Amino acid sequence: MQKLRYHRPGTAPATLVAPPEQVGHKPVIRLIEYDAHSLEEYEVENVEEVFKCLDNNKVSWIDISGLGDVEVFRRLGRHFRLHPLALEDALCPGQRPKVDEYQDQLFILLQMAYENKEQELIFEQVSLLLGKEYLISVQEMPGRDVFDPVRQRLREAGGNARFMKSDYLTYALVDAVIDHYFPIVESLGESIEAMQETVLEKPTRERLLEVHEFRKALLQLRRGVWPTRDVLARLWRDETGLISERTKPFLRDCYDNAISIIDLMENYRDAVRDVMDLYLSTLSMRINEVMRVLAVITCIFAPLTFIVGVYGMNFEGMPELKWRYGYLFAWLIIIAVSLVMILYFKLKKWL
Amino acid sequence: MQKLRYHRPGTAPATLVAPPEQVGHKPVIRLIEYDAHSLEEYEVENVEEVFKCLDNNKVSWIDISGLGDVEVFRRLGRHFRLHPLALEDALCPGQRPKVDEYQDQLFILLQMAYENKEQELIFEQVSLLLGKEYLISVQEMPGRDVFDPVRQRLREAGGNARFMKSDYLTYALVDAVIDHYFPIVESLGESIEAMQETVLEKPTRERLLEVHEFRKALLQLRRGVWPTRDVLARLWRDETGLISERTKPFLRDCYDNAISIIDLMENYRDAVRDVMDLYLSTLSMRINEVMRVLAVITCIFAPLTFIVGVYGMNFEGMPELKWRYGYLFAWLIIIAVSLVMILYFKLKKWL
Amino acid sequence: MQKLRYHRPGTAPATLVAPPEQVGHKPVIRLIEYDAHSLEEYEVENVEEVFKCLDNNKVSWIDISGLGDVEVFRRLGRHFRLHPLALEDALCPGQRPKVDEYQDQLFILLQMAYENKEQELIFEQVSLLLGKEYLISVQEMPGRDVFDPVRQRLREAGGNARFMKSDYLTYALVDAVIDHYFPIVESLGESIEAMQETVLEKPTRERLLEVHEFRKALLQLRRGVWPTRDVLARLWRDETGLISERTKPFLRDCYDNAISIIDLMENYRDAVRDVMDLYLSTLSMRINEVMRVLAVITCIFAPLTFIVGVYGMNFEGMPELKWRYGYLFAWLIIIAVSLVMILYFKLKKWL
Amino acid sequence: MQKLRYHRPGTAPATLVAPPEQVGHKPVIRLIEYDAHSLEEYEVENVEEVFKCLDNNKVSWIDISGLGDVEVFRRLGRHFRLHPLALEDALCPGQRPKVDEYQDQLFILLQMAYENKEQELIFEQVSLLLGKEYLISVQEMPGRDVFDPVRQRLREAGGNARFMKSDYLTYALVDAVIDHYFPIVESLGESIEAMQETVLEKPTRERLLEVHEFRKALLQLRRGVWPTRDVLARLWRDETGLISERTKPFLRDCYDNAISIIDLMENYRDAVRDVMDLYLSTLSMRINEVMRVLAVITCIFAPLTFIVGVYGMNFEGMPELKWRYGYLFAWLIIIAVSLVMILYFKLKKWL
Amino acid sequence: MQKLRYHRPGTAPATLVAPPEQVGHKPVIRLIEYDAHSLEEYEVENVEEVFKCLDNNKVSWIDISGLGDVEVFRRLGRHFRLHPLALEDALCPGQRPKVDEYQDQLFILLQMAYENKEQELIFEQVSLLLGKEYLISVQEMPGRDVFDPVRQRLREAGGNARFMKSDYLTYALVDAVIDHYFPIVESLGESIEAMQETVLEKPTRERLLEVHEFRKALLQLRRGVWPTRDVLARLWRDETGLISERTKPFLRDCYDNAISIIDLMENYRDAVRDVMDLYLSTLSMRINEVMRVLAVITCIFAPLTFIVGVYGMNFEGMPELKWRYGYLFAWLIIIAVSLVMILYFKLKKWL
Repeated sequence: MQKLRYHRPGTAPATLVAPPEQVGHKPVIRLIEYDAHSLEEYEVENVEEVFKCLDNNKVSWIDISGLGDVEVFRRLGRHFRLHPLALEDALCPGQRPKVDEYQDQLFILLQMAYENKEQELIFEQVSLLLGKEYLISVQEMPGRDVFDPVRQRLREAGGNARFMKSDYLTYALVDAVIDHYFPIVESLGESIEAMQETVLEKPTRERLLEVHEFRKALLQLRRGVWPTRDVLARLWRDETGLISERTKPFLRDCYDNAISIIDLMENYRDAVRDVMDLYLSTLSMRINEVMRVLAVITCIFAPLTFIVGVYGMNFEGMPELKWRYGYLFAWLIIIAVSLVMILYFKLKKWL
Repeated sequence: MQKLRYHRPGTAPATLVAPPEQVGHKPVIRLIEYDAHSLEEYEVENVEEVFKCLDNNKVSWIDISGLGDVEVFRRLGRHFRLHPLALEDALCPGQRPKVDEYQDQLFILLQMAYENKEQELIFEQVSLLLGKEYLISVQEMPGRDVFDPVRQRLREAGGNARFMKSDYLTYALVDAVIDHYFPIVESLGESIEAMQETVLEKPTRERLLEVHEFRKALLQLRRGVWPTRDVLARLWRDETGLISERTKPFLRDCYDNAISIIDLMENYRDAVRDVMDLYLSTLSMRINEVMRVLAVITCIFAPLTFIVGVYGMNFEGMPELKWRYGYLFAWLIIIAVSLVMILYFKLKKWL
Repeated sequence: MQKLRYHRPGTAPATLVAPPEQVGHKPVIRLIEYDAHSLEEYEVENVEEVFKCLDNNKVSWIDISGLGDVEVFRRLGRHFRLHPLALEDALCPGQRPKVDEYQDQLFILLQMAYENKEQELIFEQVSLLLGKEYLISVQEMPGRDVFDPVRQRLREAGGNARFMKSDYLTYALVDAVIDHYFPIVESLGESIEAMQETVLEKPTRERLLEVHEFRKALLQLRRGVWPTRDVLARLWRDETGLISERTKPFLRDCYDNAISIIDLMENYRDAVRDVMDLYLSTLSMRINEVMRVLAVITCIFAPLTFIVGVYGMNFEGMPELKWRYGYLFAWLIIIAVSLVMILYFKLKKWL
Repeated sequence: MQKLRYHRPGTAPATLVAPPEQVGHKPVIRLIEYDAHSLEEYEVENVEEVFKCLDNNKVSWIDISGLGDVEVFRRLGRHFRLHPLALEDALCPGQRPKVDEYQDQLFILLQMAYENKEQELIFEQVSLLLGKEYLISVQEMPGRDVFDPVRQRLREAGGNARFMKSDYLTYALVDAVIDHYFPIVESLGESIEAMQETVLEKPTRERLLEVHEFRKALLQLRRGVWPTRDVLARLWRDETGLISERTKPFLRDCYDNAISIIDLMENYRDAVRDVMDLYLSTLSMRINEVMRVLAVITCIFAPLTFIVGVYGMNFEGMPELKWRYGYLFAWLIIIAVSLVMILYFKLKKWL
Repeated sequence: MQKLRYHRPGTAPATLVAPPEQVGHKPVIRLIEYDAHSLEEYEVENVEEVFKCLDNNKVSWIDISGLGDVEVFRRLGRHFRLHPLALEDALCPGQRPKVDEYQDQLFILLQMAYENKEQELIFEQVSLLLGKEYLISVQEMPGRDVFDPVRQRLREAGGNARFMKSDYLTYALVDAVIDHYFPIVESLGESIEAMQETVLEKPTRERLLEVHEFRKALLQLRRGVWPTRDVLARLWRDETGLISERTKPFLRDCYDNAISIIDLMENYRDAVRDVMDLYLSTLSMRINEVMRVLAVITCIFAPLTFIVGVYGMNFEGMPELKWRYGYLFAWLIIIAVSLVMILYFKLKKWL
């Protein structure tokens, strides 16, 4: 279950606090400025360096990785006149994906998903602040750079990216986030197929736990993807004018991707419930078979024990005891009775 | 479970890539041009041949089967000014059915369903690009030609087809795709009826698997049909002007067909759940009956074994042992006890 | 499960084909013309006879029972300029209830439900084509005339019917169709009450099947009624102008009836699920009781058999065997043990 | 299950028929006329007496209890020009709550709920016909007068009632109907709490029936309340002008009450399902415990019976039989084995 | 289950009654007046003291804790022209959260949730009456002061609070109420995690009860939060003009918080159902294992008892009895049979 983060009740709204585990870690700040003709790239030490270079008809992309230094965000906020609530959300990881419209700015918050080395599902918060000629992106954790392929495409001046404005860049980053859901969904699909195959062969208790883990992962993933869909729908149908008509088909495409992911997840949900049902009924059938076989064996010996008990009685006048082939006769009865029972049970398919 | 296809995270949007298994296979390109008076049909080698013959007030239908040659699509895209995202979708099979509006063009993506020889459900992607006077259709796989009946009707100049424009042709192709769902739904209906009959007679484990397979197929089918319904609803209520008023009633009819299919599928879903419930409770009842019968038998012999045990005791002063008809007496008791128990169990309907 | 009907994939749209089992059976055609002052009634042989008598300010009601003769429909279609898709739907039974607007015409398709002599639920398709001054009604099967009470009311000039136009006649026919659902819903209600009473007394396997059949019938009925509700909602809120303001309250009343039927059916659905649950848990409780009683009996004899076994041992120095009242002593132990166990089980309410 | 009432299929619409069990019983007719200054109250014999006293700027409230005399309703209908469908609904008990707008009139139909002496849930239909200056209320059954507190408040000239018009009176009556749901919902809430407490202590079969009865009552109640909510929502947002702006906040308050009732009922639904689940699992656990204990006892005696059987064998050279303390030795083995088993089972918590 | 409160049926609407348990307890009344420059704070004895100090361009916040004195509310209502229905709601605890628009006033009713010392979930009603320049807040219980942090922030003139109007104050109070849900949701999240861990290790009956309690708490919480979401959505999209544009982003943020809480609760609901399923299936598996082991033991001794019974028979000519190593031979058979059975059961994993 994902950790819930919230400010202590009674805290003033829009209070900027860095996540405790990151305090003191300096965020990495990168600035890229580009237009169709040129691209310049800086790694800046001091956030103020970023401010001077903006009045120039170029697209400015300020990328901040790491939430450790509240001061950076406070200065950014003052310079770009960012809404304090947007800043607060960007600094507080684990938020629900959303898009907020502020005057002349669009604030987009997404959760990127990936599996870490222990195959656990990890979410990393990504915030985008889109202005007329700039884009500020905030990544929760430094180190794992999801936006590198976008940066690469910008440098290579390949595709549309360089010819378009900050709204297209926003799309490119959103798309990069969405794209990371696909491998996860794919691996879920594979594990469900594996489950369907093994469930009928070896319905052990480990399977049950596996199914349970699967459902937990699915639940978490849905929590990330469903609101993302709404974010994309709102971006695609944007009415603030910050998203140009040329960019919208791309966002719609991105929206279609989100729908596909949701579609698959809902399918998996149904499929995993089917697997669970199948598993439980197979298991109960197996157990019943075992009990049936044991009961059959016990049942066969009940009359046999009775028969030998009869000839263990101490009555004086028991003719069979004196017969020459009495003992043989007893065995014949025993064998006959057991054969009849076995045959009967075989016939009834109980054995 | 259907294979999920996606580009590697980090790929630039609108990258045209042919599906790996088709690379190198040349697509089959057909061109049909017609108006009410005449129809001409070509199988072209080179996609450029298609371009010259379009400025002529006729409806031009370019049909491409197979996705193996990216270059063909790139050239088509350049000549007809198709949106790169539409081309990308057409080239990437396994997409969710959708309709996208581009300037002066409508992009329709559908999944055609059919059963292959192994009775497996196969989906084939069909993309339609409707312009003012032309229609480009892209079929995922060459060989299996679903549009042949439409082509036949065009040649024979039967029905409305020849008198109407490319929007009606679009309808005809969409209708051809939808029509292929009916035999599949019908066969599902038949197998559910068969299940309902057999389930009560022989609730074996194979039945359980059958039901499971049925549910899987239904899940897949729903994934194809539900979005198709939305596609048709949007086409029918089209506001781009590409679909004429005269064609709309036909699309509405097609929409009604999709609704009927969905309706039936939802019914099957409920019905199959009922069958499953019935199956499981019948099964559990049968098993319980078996266990009951076995327990009854074991139970009957418990007192009998006790009785013969009594007369197997070695006490000195046991009068019965010395009676003349002691042995007979013991047997009478045994028979009496067993009769009473059998009668009692029969009366209680436990046997 | 209702039979699915569809044209072979590849058939041209709007192809008129009579249902195979009716081919060759001539439909019965009746014409009624009326206004407030007079009413004339004809049974016509030849569909053309109907055409001449329409230009006369009266309401013309053409009623066709039976779908056997395609030519009749083709000629009707040509004369009244009916849309070929409406004709196709009218000829193809088993369609989903719907209402389609065509230019100057309203096409209404409904499913009438009734129980046949074998208590099976039968649906019969009824199509209504409402024009400005005429109404064409098409009944799937000749013989069973649901519209006779309406005809009777028209002849008797009772109620509003004669003073109003073809839209009110449409209402009267729709109402006649809806009214037939009530007795069926009532009989469902009665059988559910019966189930609730019997289920606790005799939870046999036949009950389970009864419940299953009930659910199947409910499923079928819902398939007919839900879309009918939508049809009525659309008629009531009609915007084509074909339905007059004076008729609308009557259609709303009809809509309320449909809602009531749906309401009851949804209630029955919940109720039948409750009955099912109750049935299954009662059944499992009964079975468990049986098993418990059997296990108790077997359990009581286990120590007894052990005791008699003890005194069946052949040790030399077993003092009890030589006691004067040894045998009696053994019996006393046996009786004591069994009494203690029986009392204990009685106390625990296990017996 | 509530009785379904409907006219025989084929009956003309808007046919006025009194419920068979009331035919011949004269309804009680009361007339109250009031404005802020005065109030007059009459119990009238003949419905025509009501007609003369209406042209006087006062609010006229005509209250009819009992549906036995169709003629009364017919005359009322003629004088106030009531729509025949409204009259038909008012006369036919068991209708679904609804509000219908007619020209200059609003027809409101509600179901009042109360528990009779046998603790059964009874519904009584209440119809209100609101005109500009009058209100006609129709109660299904004479005798039980729910509107008496309202009448009392009017007489006492307390609160707003006397200063306001017929729309406020309508509100007061609707509110009186809604208020009767509260004690029922409260008693449901209490019985669910009682169930939650007892279910874990004594899960007998009577409990199961209790839960079942509870669910049935809830189902019935929901059928009454859900459409009532819609009625209130439509009244509150009234656009006919018959409800004044000053009355609307009161109707909204009434609507909030309906929402609260629904809210609680949905909560109860979930809660009762939980109780059911808990009950069933507790029950199955108890049964399993019993079976386990029985199986343990039987299991303990199995080896003991075997041991004594060993020394009951008649072999010649069985040394133990001749030992001096052979018999004691056998008993020691028996006691040892049984102790080991009992300890083992205790340790495993099976006993 | 929360106590349902309602007025006795027949009570006049908008009757002001103090909750019985609070009658006689004088409420605590506080008045704070502030603008950007100054803040004055009074604890008043007599509610009339509050009235004089309002005409002064400052924001006046009147906070009342405790519902014991109806007269206070009646006077307040008369002075501020509050709607009697709003007052009635404020005085009647346990209402559903809602927002009502009155002329120039907004009435907001919320439920604050917290856990008392016994870890029970307690709801306390909070009503807010927002006017142009004043805000009246009513807390159900004196003593527990949730608004203290807000008061503190006002005094310290920190943040936005002092620069903004009564609408921002409303936001601050609403936010304080919402913030109290977070610790509760967090503790639910922790207990679900604990359940998931323990459920597989020790599936005892106490677990089952724990899960049941959890579901009850969740049900209650949902009842409080869901309507709160609607309240916030309506405040955020306010159209009365009482909420300024500058305050709306803050309310939207508050709305996002409510959505997050709901999201988590729905997740917990699914998760707890999973835990329940897992618990029940683990439990049933354990019980089945126990029964299987017991049945296996009983089953092993069945043939052994039979064998020793055979040699307990008293036939005359039983050769084995006279063999020199007859007894040993019997033991060998017994050991062989039991070994074979144990091995077989081990192999089959039944033991």
